[in-house]
Amino acid sequence: MPRIKLTVAYKGTNYCGFQIQPNQTTIEGTLNEALTALTGTPTAVIGASRTDSGVHALGNVAVFDTDMQIPAQKVAYALNARLPHDIVVTASEEVPDTFHPRKCVSEKTYEYRILNTKFPNPLIADITHFYHYDLDVQKMQAAAAYLVGEHDFTAFCSTKTATQTNVRTVFDITVKRTEDTVTVRVTGNGFLYNMVRIIAGTLIEVGNGRRTPESVKEALESRDRNASGPTAPACGLTLIGIKYQ
Amino acid sequence: MPRIKLTVAYKGTNYCGFQIQPNQTTIEGTLNEALTALTGTPTAVIGASRTDSGVHALGNVAVFDTDMQIPAQKVAYALNARLPHDIVVTASEEVPDTFHPRKCVSEKTYEYRILNTKFPNPLIADITHFYHYDLDVQKMQAAAAYLVGEHDFTAFCSTKTATQTNVRTVFDITVKRTEDTVTVRVTGNGFLYNMVRIIAGTLIEVGNGRRTPESVKEALESRDRNASGPTAPACGLTLIGIKYQ
Repeated sequence: MPRIKLTVAYKGTNYCGFQIQPNQTTIEGTLNEALTALTGTPTAVIGASRTDSGVHALGNVAVFDTDMQIPAQKVAYALNARLPHDIVVTASEEVPDTFHPRKCVSEKTYEYRILNTKFPNPLIADITHFYHYDLDVQKMQAAAAYLVGEHDFTAFCSTKTATQTNVRTVFDITVKRTEDTVTVRVTGNGFLYNMVRIIAGTLIEVGNGRRTPESVKEALESRDRNASGPTAPACGLTLIGIKYQ
Repeated sequence: MPRIKLTVAYKGTNYCGFQIQPNQTTIEGTLNEALTALTGTPTAVIGASRTDSGVHALGNVAVFDTDMQIPAQKVAYALNARLPHDIVVTASEEVPDTFHPRKCVSEKTYEYRILNTKFPNPLIADITHFYHYDLDVQKMQAAAAYLVGEHDFTAFCSTKTATQTNVRTVFDITVKRTEDTVTVRVTGNGFLYNMVRIIAGTLIEVGNGRRTPESVKEALESRDRNASGPTAPACGLTLIGIKYQ
């Protein structure tokens, strides 16, 4: 049965995260309903990133298997006609049935956006984290540099994380200011539960002078969640995209 | 009684426009409720621009008169604590009681933002107009140039408009592309009902090749609403700011 890969963009504000849950509106559940209506047979996706409640995506990935007689490239349009306006499939293509969005080696990019102004901007309040104390981007960049590379990120994940290993590789982190917005962009081979939001929350503490860039190195080495900063709010986080080998 | 000027930003998506109406949620009504709660006495604003349902603002202006014993600059913070998250007062200051936000001479700037991509972007769907056919920005700019200056804009306002004169002065129009977004920015001494949205709808028709830039000059001279393009959707429009002499 052919396997179809979907690239999915969504605004997470009104969803209880990606992963399907009983009696909750989720991205996965909404995709499954649209696919089941489209194919006429119960259909479920396998998703790449189980983003949290309130987290957004421009390029999450999901696959499903189908015998449907419709060209793979047209699936995006047919699905969008059945999806609410806050979920958009931006590409669809056939992939080998060995392709698994979580098990295949990938490179993920997230952006955490901070609106660093005196007053909030209601036009983008859902998709940015408003923070009104001045942020020193150079110090944030210096702190971020300590996180690049292969590390045990136990200090930068939720204590609820249950994985075989907390070792991940961060390929790159950049912290940039564009007008009023400070964007933390992180690329890696995988991220632990809440990892990008804890990195963002810790870098904000560096940016406002509450902690030094070096303290981030110490936190990383401690492998102690108490040594890093708070988990920044979900609304600032967007999964930009996932590249597969 | 001191008069206080407010600069107001809002996301218009969930409001039936600025102007107060019975049994409808409006920006003006919400401001009046917050002010009445803050001052403890029935208080009503006079607004500058009565933006339509779904239209946004970064810098609309409103004034109110009060005997309240609170420094004018602090009113913004006190009001924001009482306003929903999609309305933010970004400045408050005392002004002479002769200052009237609609009668005093002003320069208003609006932006109409068009997301010109193959697929919509759900993160910014509320604050942009999605248009997927390629737009030729140079042709749009050439057409826009005909609208600059003092003209009778009867062809570019709703037939419902009831004003003494339809003559207005447009100081400047620019059409720019930044990545996937085409922004039409218009500055003038005043705008008729739906004027910026009709300008945007007409320029989109120029951008997609359905009409020539010169046809915009002809439409303007005809003073006939049927000669211009459609009214572009409200979601793309934002009142950027108002400058007073």
